Amino acid sequence: MSLVVVGSMAFDAIETPFGKSDKIIGGAGTYIAWCASNFTSVKQISVVGGDFPQEELDALTSRKVNLEGVQIKKDEKTFFWSGRYHMDMNSRDTLDTQLNVLENFQPVVPESYQDCEFLMLGNLVPAVQRSVIEQLKTRPKLIVMDTMNFWMEIAMDDLKQTISMVDVLLVNDSEARQLSGEYSLVKAAAAIMKMGPKYLIIKKGEHGALLFHQNKVFFAPALPLEEVFDPTGAGDTFAGGFIGHIARTKDISFENMKTAIIIGSAMASYCVEKFGTERLREIGKADIDERLSQFVQLVNFDIDLV
Amino acid sequence: MSLVVVGSMAFDAIETPFGKSDKIIGGAGTYIAWCASNFTSVKQISVVGGDFPQEELDALTSRKVNLEGVQIKKDEKTFFWSGRYHMDMNSRDTLDTQLNVLENFQPVVPESYQDCEFLMLGNLVPAVQRSVIEQLKTRPKLIVMDTMNFWMEIAMDDLKQTISMVDVLLVNDSEARQLSGEYSLVKAAAAIMKMGPKYLIIKKGEHGALLFHQNKVFFAPALPLEEVFDPTGAGDTFAGGFIGHIARTKDISFENMKTAIIIGSAMASYCVEKFGTERLREIGKADIDERLSQFVQLVNFDIDLV
Repeated sequence: MSLVVVGSMAFDAIETPFGKSDKIIGGAGTYIAWCASNFTSVKQISVVGGDFPQEELDALTSRKVNLEGVQIKKDEKTFFWSGRYHMDMNSRDTLDTQLNVLENFQPVVPESYQDCEFLMLGNLVPAVQRSVIEQLKTRPKLIVMDTMNFWMEIAMDDLKQTISMVDVLLVNDSEARQLSGEYSLVKAAAAIMKMGPKYLIIKKGEHGALLFHQNKVFFAPALPLEEVFDPTGAGDTFAGGFIGHIARTKDISFENMKTAIIIGSAMASYCVEKFGTERLREIGKADIDERLSQFVQLVNFDIDLV
Repeated sequence: MSLVVVGSMAFDAIETPFGKSDKIIGGAGTYIAWCASNFTSVKQISVVGGDFPQEELDALTSRKVNLEGVQIKKDEKTFFWSGRYHMDMNSRDTLDTQLNVLENFQPVVPESYQDCEFLMLGNLVPAVQRSVIEQLKTRPKLIVMDTMNFWMEIAMDDLKQTISMVDVLLVNDSEARQLSGEYSLVKAAAAIMKMGPKYLIIKKGEHGALLFHQNKVFFAPALPLEEVFDPTGAGDTFAGGFIGHIARTKDISFENMKTAIIIGSAMASYCVEKFGTERLREIGKADIDERLSQFVQLVNFDIDLV
């Protein structure tokens, strides 16, 4: 039984108020794999061009990320995104997008991935995400889907169709409002859960994340940081920590999802400390445990009722 | 030994996207007193005009709010504020401000208040807040101060002088940035604590609140609500719950302040459910306990380190 991750592997060029990166390795699938592989082995589905460095693929393989489902289009170029963050680090302008290999991406699920128990659909064209679900002969125990406002603008019907097939949806606060047409996040969550997902995670960046299920709600804070150096991939890393913990523990209860969200938040807090995936490559078990302890300190309180 | 509260008692006229109030009872001191009196008796310092309803004063007296320090200027009018909230409920426009009795307010601390152990300075002219500290013959065990951006704009030096004399400062996130000149709240907190206060609480509205002390930080979420009906007084109510709990338990440790912040958040979550002080007048011990249980559910998680 295994965790299958679907998501882009890409080149990014990033500008923040703190600096500017070269063309570095990025992509939702990349961040998810780097993060989730701290917790469990990963079977990756993606596509890259002939220009994608072999050593990057080798680095993932050495972390038990199975790349059988990653197509390498020798004569094409890898997806490229370039963006500039504003001072608040929450908003950004896209400077350049070159779809390249993503333009006609048709994911193929290898036979060896058919034991998929947990499926993480990183942000991608909703029809591509759906195609992976449809290729699996047995429905996974848990399907988690990330998406973004872009698909709400150009492919809402398609997006809703994929959303109706998943168990957990991940969106940020403005996306939750856009998707539901409700301003109150509590009302937005109720409306979105009617679209299919039994669980909804609303990410609020530096303000933490909310997990909704039925009439229950759980809140995970973000760790207050001196500096957010580069927020790129923080949401993907969050997703990787969430699904990584769930796949490791094989427990899809609401209680375990709370822990998974704290782990996702801890991993995201590392991600933003350096450009791209740099910080994720440096950290190990001891770092993760240390940061999880900080989260316990951050929210732990005693209450003696009045 | 006692809790002394300083703050305005006022008339408010409020417009929100959900409706419009008549001229209703408001003022920082009013909210703090209504809230803190759930936890302990209160000695109030304020000023009202002859137009302030006697039944409002009687209602506070019946909750063990001592009004000996409330000046009644028979021939003058009570402070009046009118404002309109925007859709996000975080920003608002002031439509009208009539200082009236507040214009020349000189607080006088009655002899019977000299046993003050805990002092809550509600948002007011910084020099007026300071005058109360200076009139106390024995320094209270804990001085908590609320303030706002308005004083940073017109009386920064004066404000900093008062800030240097208190133990706990309460500001919101944009005020913390304005006061410190730092964008990162972690850096802002460090800078503000160098101005005097050993503890800093940064309120983030619907995004919760942070408590800083030395190199420690604690985060209290806001309860996700279906609707925020009227945010007026939420910050004052938060302060009232915070100081009320501390005065009740007489424990000024960091650990107990964490609990106090959760209680402040719970009380604020009630405040915003109806116009003005209406909801605060309705709730009792059982309601408070119920909401505190919701906060425990909201942030409680089990962690088994990786």
